[in-house]
Amino acid sequence: MTSKTRPKLDLKSPSIFIGKQGNGTISFGSGQPDLPPPEEVVEGLNIRQDLRYGLIQGETPLREALSAEYPTSTAENFVITNGASEALDLIFRSFGSGKVLLPRPYYYSYPPIVRLAGMEPVFTDLKNGRIDMEDFKEKVAGCRIVLINSPSNPTGRVESIETLKEIEKITQELGIYIISDEVYKDLIYERENYLIKGDNVITVNSFSKTYAMCGVRVGYLWSPNQTIVNSVIEIKTHTSMNTNLVGQDMALRAMRVPRSYIDDQLKIWRRRRDLMYAGLTSLGMELWKPEGAFYVLPKVPRPEELVTRLYLEHKVITYLGEWFGAPGRIRLSYALDEAEIEKGLEHIGICLREMEGR
Amino acid sequence: MTSKTRPKLDLKSPSIFIGKQGNGTISFGSGQPDLPPPEEVVEGLNIRQDLRYGLIQGETPLREALSAEYPTSTAENFVITNGASEALDLIFRSFGSGKVLLPRPYYYSYPPIVRLAGMEPVFTDLKNGRIDMEDFKEKVAGCRIVLINSPSNPTGRVESIETLKEIEKITQELGIYIISDEVYKDLIYERENYLIKGDNVITVNSFSKTYAMCGVRVGYLWSPNQTIVNSVIEIKTHTSMNTNLVGQDMALRAMRVPRSYIDDQLKIWRRRRDLMYAGLTSLGMELWKPEGAFYVLPKVPRPEELVTRLYLEHKVITYLGEWFGAPGRIRLSYALDEAEIEKGLEHIGICLREMEGR
Repeated sequence: MTSKTRPKLDLKSPSIFIGKQGNGTISFGSGQPDLPPPEEVVEGLNIRQDLRYGLIQGETPLREALSAEYPTSTAENFVITNGASEALDLIFRSFGSGKVLLPRPYYYSYPPIVRLAGMEPVFTDLKNGRIDMEDFKEKVAGCRIVLINSPSNPTGRVESIETLKEIEKITQELGIYIISDEVYKDLIYERENYLIKGDNVITVNSFSKTYAMCGVRVGYLWSPNQTIVNSVIEIKTHTSMNTNLVGQDMALRAMRVPRSYIDDQLKIWRRRRDLMYAGLTSLGMELWKPEGAFYVLPKVPRPEELVTRLYLEHKVITYLGEWFGAPGRIRLSYALDEAEIEKGLEHIGICLREMEGR
Repeated sequence: MTSKTRPKLDLKSPSIFIGKQGNGTISFGSGQPDLPPPEEVVEGLNIRQDLRYGLIQGETPLREALSAEYPTSTAENFVITNGASEALDLIFRSFGSGKVLLPRPYYYSYPPIVRLAGMEPVFTDLKNGRIDMEDFKEKVAGCRIVLINSPSNPTGRVESIETLKEIEKITQELGIYIISDEVYKDLIYERENYLIKGDNVITVNSFSKTYAMCGVRVGYLWSPNQTIVNSVIEIKTHTSMNTNLVGQDMALRAMRVPRSYIDDQLKIWRRRRDLMYAGLTSLGMELWKPEGAFYVLPKVPRPEELVTRLYLEHKVITYLGEWFGAPGRIRLSYALDEAEIEKGLEHIGICLREMEGR
């Protein structure tokens, strides 16, 4: 096999590509939107007001602004966190034991944070990139939590409203909690987001993707279940205290940005999605058409070899599907401009032909 | 007993006093320095550069600047965290089981974060606010980690260099790790800080106290043991990702502030310390003279009643010693100006006399 004689990459995790951008490298790796954040987020910030300890739960004006977006909520139902990652981590830690049902393919941090919190991941395999209700029903019994991620990283798929309503019903009947990770809720190409409801629901969200402010690390969780909210606050008191106030200040400004900003962004994302989907399809790849977020997860021949050759011989970064529980596939983010996408697709085509010995 | 007929406070934790400042309240509660941060920290910040994902380990220029302060270190030995709290949490989680020796009285978050990480706290009682080597030696066997906090919150005491060297030696012989929480290392009234050394050492620090930027949440850990550093980075990848970049930018600017800033602050803290110590002593209280940080932990009669009456009848916030493992005492921070300290002391005197029925 040719790959044995070629240089190898230590393909353990996406971290091998961190800091490898630049110098003409085309990265389909990162989940970082390339579009600039709205000016209003940064303009007029007075950082001197943001230097003292704040409330562990998060600044009141930000939580009040959020509560207007969640029906029948108050500021008490929210906790502002260091990105959606910390929100998820705090929720799992507040449970501390039991099983969590994860749709597979999954965002690569889900299984490790579930385990770090002392919980056990159980997997339900997606069908065409969406939840397979038959398998879901079999696996859900005995779980304490079900995690839903729609739109999904890495599949780019969106669950149907019928599926979400059915999951609402089943989990309520069984007394199981739902964590709904909605960090891509403003990036749905097909329809409005459907907010999962119920006393057993915990929604996780972030300002990172919608407003291109990933490095600022501001996310939040929302739950009508005040016991869970309070238990998360108790843990955060000891593990990280308040989320940085400059970031919360920026998040509040982001919330005042007119909805047209999001709609305009969506047009750009849809064009890129179409370009990506057409390009990969024309290379003969089998893939699910993204309905949200900005990822595709095509089937490819010899994924380790492809990811390695693309990086070492073509300066193109792609992620191994295996990191997301999807062997036989690679994940590509299309958070880069159309010219770059086209150039990247060209290299992928050349690389595939080289691998076939053509 | 009079306290039974009086209104009661739910004295479960310091959180009952959060957000209770203002309106003429004098707070000896908070660990937030009242002095303004150096101008250089905020001036000329370009936040637009700080919006994209950064390295999980922390920005390279900040880690390089830190490495210059730690002998024989490189930027690789550091991880930038959401305050010292997250640094401690990540370290304990990277161990995940076993016993941790904590000097008592302790910073109130230590026992909960040890337990949250699946570890078990073991206590060594301080003698005159400092480590009692006899008790320490008895308790240390069987522990995986020893935590040292010098200067200490809440005792205000500083360990002698002999004690620290003896602990270095004992732990190295027994193969036990030391976590040295040095967030008050720039606030020592008596001598220079002594940096604990060895392959088994993990130092935790923060920009919050020295540069009065608590709300920005930037701390770090340092260890010559690269296995521990890498294991912390692995966990942080899933639980919070990079520490907010605006804060790291501010921390880097703080490091360029001349040492004279710290020396000038120290003069102010020493004057306040003297005022506090003289004032409480003249009220007949038994207390340890603070040698660092900005806390005192005097013995008082009926602490619950005193804390309650001080707050409800005198608008003076103090913390119950019991929260810090010190029943029979209260903790006072002197992070407030001299006029406030004097007024607060006056109220404490009046309240004590009222409690004695005089």
